[in-house]
Amino acid sequence: MSDFNVYIEKIESALSRFVPEEKGELEDIPGMLLYSLEGGGKRVRPLLCMKFCECVGGKAEDALYFACAVEFVHTYSLIHDDLPCMDNDDIRRGKPSSHKKFGEANALLAGDALLTHAFGIISKAHSEVGTDAEKCVKAVGELSEFAGINGMIGGQFIDLKYENRQADGNVLFTMDALKTSKLFEAACVLGVIAGGGSADDIRRARSFALNLGIAFQITDDLLETNDDDNSDEANNKATYISVFGKKEAARLAEEYTENAVRELDGFAGRADDIKMLALSLLGRKK
Amino acid sequence: MSDFNVYIEKIESALSRFVPEEKGELEDIPGMLLYSLEGGGKRVRPLLCMKFCECVGGKAEDALYFACAVEFVHTYSLIHDDLPCMDNDDIRRGKPSSHKKFGEANALLAGDALLTHAFGIISKAHSEVGTDAEKCVKAVGELSEFAGINGMIGGQFIDLKYENRQADGNVLFTMDALKTSKLFEAACVLGVIAGGGSADDIRRARSFALNLGIAFQITDDLLETNDDDNSDEANNKATYISVFGKKEAARLAEEYTENAVRELDGFAGRADDIKMLALSLLGRKK
Repeated sequence: MSDFNVYIEKIESALSRFVPEEKGELEDIPGMLLYSLEGGGKRVRPLLCMKFCECVGGKAEDALYFACAVEFVHTYSLIHDDLPCMDNDDIRRGKPSSHKKFGEANALLAGDALLTHAFGIISKAHSEVGTDAEKCVKAVGELSEFAGINGMIGGQFIDLKYENRQADGNVLFTMDALKTSKLFEAACVLGVIAGGGSADDIRRARSFALNLGIAFQITDDLLETNDDDNSDEANNKATYISVFGKKEAARLAEEYTENAVRELDGFAGRADDIKMLALSLLGRKK
Repeated sequence: MSDFNVYIEKIESALSRFVPEEKGELEDIPGMLLYSLEGGGKRVRPLLCMKFCECVGGKAEDALYFACAVEFVHTYSLIHDDLPCMDNDDIRRGKPSSHKKFGEANALLAGDALLTHAFGIISKAHSEVGTDAEKCVKAVGELSEFAGINGMIGGQFIDLKYENRQADGNVLFTMDALKTSKLFEAACVLGVIAGGGSADDIRRARSFALNLGIAFQITDDLLETNDDDNSDEANNKATYISVFGKKEAARLAEEYTENAVRELDGFAGRADDIKMLALSLLGRKK
């Protein structure tokens, strides 16, 4: 993915820049946010955002602010997911999770801060680099929907609901379509908005992201990956393998991947990078 | 405050409307959000927002969406403040706090959801009632700043920092200027933005809110009020009384109140309602 490295460097540098420096009583705070932001994530969502912007005719840079906003939301969700009252994970990406490092209350606030500032970044796209106000307002609305109760947070509520009982296949699909796909959708759709894409482009981006998110989760189960937050097996939670069996889960992963890729064909060759990104993501190793 | 009741009714009804109805696996969620939103708050912030909009020449309704966004942020902050890792308060406004009612994880998510949807409401002001996109983008930026690490969340970080050591007067002022004044500022400034006020109007609104927030906190200490989240005395935390003594604290409350009211004089009689609201707030009984 050497081509992507140029983008990733821009993303990394912008992410840090969006955490304001603070002095006096507030000077410890930026470090707490940066600790989680710089935790070594793969930056899949901001990459998708910038690539979708290009794919509909914009410049990748036009989507940089929106891309970082989505990554702020993703990072806040990891901090809050790791909290003792949620998944109670002590390790995130090979280092102590935020609450192990800074204490539970500080981690709660760090997550709140990242979510709060995510929307501020979209506003800054207008005030700092002149992104059209209409686009920014639309991006705020979409990010709020995708991250809200009918999106990512909704998926987390369902996850909690099934903490002490086995989810069936339908629940798994519903939960992951919300918990995982919706933030991919946010990334892709915000990229299309930044690039000035059409309603058809948005429809394709949504469908791509929905399928990608499900394929991503099934693949996660198949790889029994230990990185990130996949401790379902240990928690005795339902997985695609426990519900469908390994063979059928593998077939489903393939089906959703094909569905995702098929949507990209609608972009007539301009989405080859995205296809490569999606396939590398789904073939990812532990 | 009978004049204000008309506004409060509009606010109450809009707040409920901004929590989307959900079905199926998500059907329990709106109730969790409404439980805290409908908890009987005084709606000071949304009232200030609508009144400041009027005061600079707009119609109160023009600020209704922004007003509700600020109240969503206020409500999320109360839910997260009450969590065991923060103030660990079991009671909020005379009923079980969110985490006592729904469990800690659900309360965490309910707070996250309210914060997320707050910004969505500002976007809806554009898509649903045609508020100018420029105003909405500006409102998103201001709300993010006032609620973020250099605002409300910053104040909460400082509060945590001084959990086990006594804050001095400077720290108290800094903390409350952030923790309390900044969300008043959000309310007032968003009202001025909605009403199309000038840079001078915004400056006055900011200064009014800063002084109001400090006066509010000192008055809280003086009343040793037990409602909302004031359990500082029990927690052995520094208060304006413990730091300055009762007599000096009373003088300070008066001074900050006068400063706040003086800023309103700049609005040449159009801020009489706001003055009444501020004075009733500062003279509030237990």
